[in-house]
Amino acid sequence: MFKNILIIGFGMIGSSIAKTVFKNNKSTNIYALDKSPSIKERLKKAKLSSVTCLKSFGEIDNSKIDLIIICTPVLQYKSIFQKLSQLKRNNFIVTDVGSTKHNIEKIYKSGNFKFRFVPSHPIAGIEKSGLEYGFVGLFDNRYNIICPLKNTSKSDLNKISKFWRSLSMKIDVMTSKEHDHVLSLTSHLPHIISYSLVLTAMKKEKSLNSKLVKFSAGGFRDFTRVAGSDPEMWRDIFLANSHQIQKLTDSFIKELKIFSQSLTSQNSDKLLKKLEMTKKVRNRIVKARQAGKFIPND
Amino acid sequence: MFKNILIIGFGMIGSSIAKTVFKNNKSTNIYALDKSPSIKERLKKAKLSSVTCLKSFGEIDNSKIDLIIICTPVLQYKSIFQKLSQLKRNNFIVTDVGSTKHNIEKIYKSGNFKFRFVPSHPIAGIEKSGLEYGFVGLFDNRYNIICPLKNTSKSDLNKISKFWRSLSMKIDVMTSKEHDHVLSLTSHLPHIISYSLVLTAMKKEKSLNSKLVKFSAGGFRDFTRVAGSDPEMWRDIFLANSHQIQKLTDSFIKELKIFSQSLTSQNSDKLLKKLEMTKKVRNRIVKARQAGKFIPND
Repeated sequence: MFKNILIIGFGMIGSSIAKTVFKNNKSTNIYALDKSPSIKERLKKAKLSSVTCLKSFGEIDNSKIDLIIICTPVLQYKSIFQKLSQLKRNNFIVTDVGSTKHNIEKIYKSGNFKFRFVPSHPIAGIEKSGLEYGFVGLFDNRYNIICPLKNTSKSDLNKISKFWRSLSMKIDVMTSKEHDHVLSLTSHLPHIISYSLVLTAMKKEKSLNSKLVKFSAGGFRDFTRVAGSDPEMWRDIFLANSHQIQKLTDSFIKELKIFSQSLTSQNSDKLLKKLEMTKKVRNRIVKARQAGKFIPND
Repeated sequence: MFKNILIIGFGMIGSSIAKTVFKNNKSTNIYALDKSPSIKERLKKAKLSSVTCLKSFGEIDNSKIDLIIICTPVLQYKSIFQKLSQLKRNNFIVTDVGSTKHNIEKIYKSGNFKFRFVPSHPIAGIEKSGLEYGFVGLFDNRYNIICPLKNTSKSDLNKISKFWRSLSMKIDVMTSKEHDHVLSLTSHLPHIISYSLVLTAMKKEKSLNSKLVKFSAGGFRDFTRVAGSDPEMWRDIFLANSHQIQKLTDSFIKELKIFSQSLTSQNSDKLLKKLEMTKKVRNRIVKARQAGKFIPND
């Protein structure tokens, strides 16, 4: 397994990786490269003082580093790739945790970069950002989608799969296009909907005298959880996969219009059948143990 | 306080009420009137065998009963009101837990019913239905909206308020119209969106080979939680408040279109600001302790 891991962009995901790696094997060395000026103090507070902070790409000892994990918002990859390609010896494999994959593959190809890159996307997260929120268990039983490139060797794919498996993840392999297609439906569309609902409510709220917050337990709060995700990360996802998201948003709007127009007592039975059908999808997610657990009162 | 409480429609909410009432005062008598043929066995299994089952409205001993709580889907109220009005002596107060209020007020008024009715709506729930899922704590620190009628006496309003407060709820009083306006935003719109998203996904899913469930942890699962609510209850809410819901759905679609069309790199800064703004709403809900708690892995 990897002995010297560099995490670029040390936030909630990075710190969850570090904590889980340390839990499995205390002798692994983890390095952090992060723009936060107080990263060292923050790591100490989060009981991660054994992580070594690097100040710049120049400080990377690439005779040592064997794995680099990029955990920054996806629109920062281009400049990171350029810096990584300037490192003289490339014994490391690069992987990442980005939520879009096709744009990243294109950046890698168009730059004609030589370092080994095996794109991956752990489907795990919470709405909180910052290394302070990382925890062991974030990845347990969740899926990681790996999107190997044309030049990815079987051996590298195996190494990266094995790494994520050691964090208790399940592996799925697909093309970057397929990944973006699936994720636009299971993640990007839900997010654009959440943001838009919160924006709709904010516009109405003036007249509602803060009742929005008080009565949010009726459903609204679920949407704000998703909309509470890291803004920069999501700005980048929306821009990187805008075409798919826009197409899917149009399909959703059509569905919503049909639903809204069907709300008449003549359609009573049909409506009930629709609602029963959607309930089954929930049951399937619960059965697959992908639902998480919601406690109504904190 | 009330000594003999009848709960009509004994589901998740009814059983949560019963359990909380018993916790506070074991000597209160609770009666259940429910269409489930196995209600008695189910109550026993749920450790609620001290609840007395009635088989019909005729069995209501209205010299005893001092509080009736209607916990059925809202479109059943009309027939329940008619049956209650046939009871000869009316020493009881009727309240309810329905998610729409204006239509109920209209039914009560148009029927010229004489029993005392103080409509209420506890904003508390989980996506599971059935008495088996009721629990002490469902109502803790949640709001209950009471919508007194013109003929509601101060004394009855106080009694009903005191009752819900004894279940650890906070009370807010407003008109039924105002209630429906607020709830259409904080609850009904989120629900129609959730159902429509799940329907959109189901149509696409065939091509996605069950990936929908596997990768639902990226956001989709949050929506299925809401869409997993009781179908009949929600069919009735949608029909009872269709006008408000349709109007609000139109506003939401406009907002979503604007958002979707803005996903271009020229709008990068604006987009970031929008996302930062919505994150603040989430923070306000968390601060108001209305957020609940989500555990990503069960």
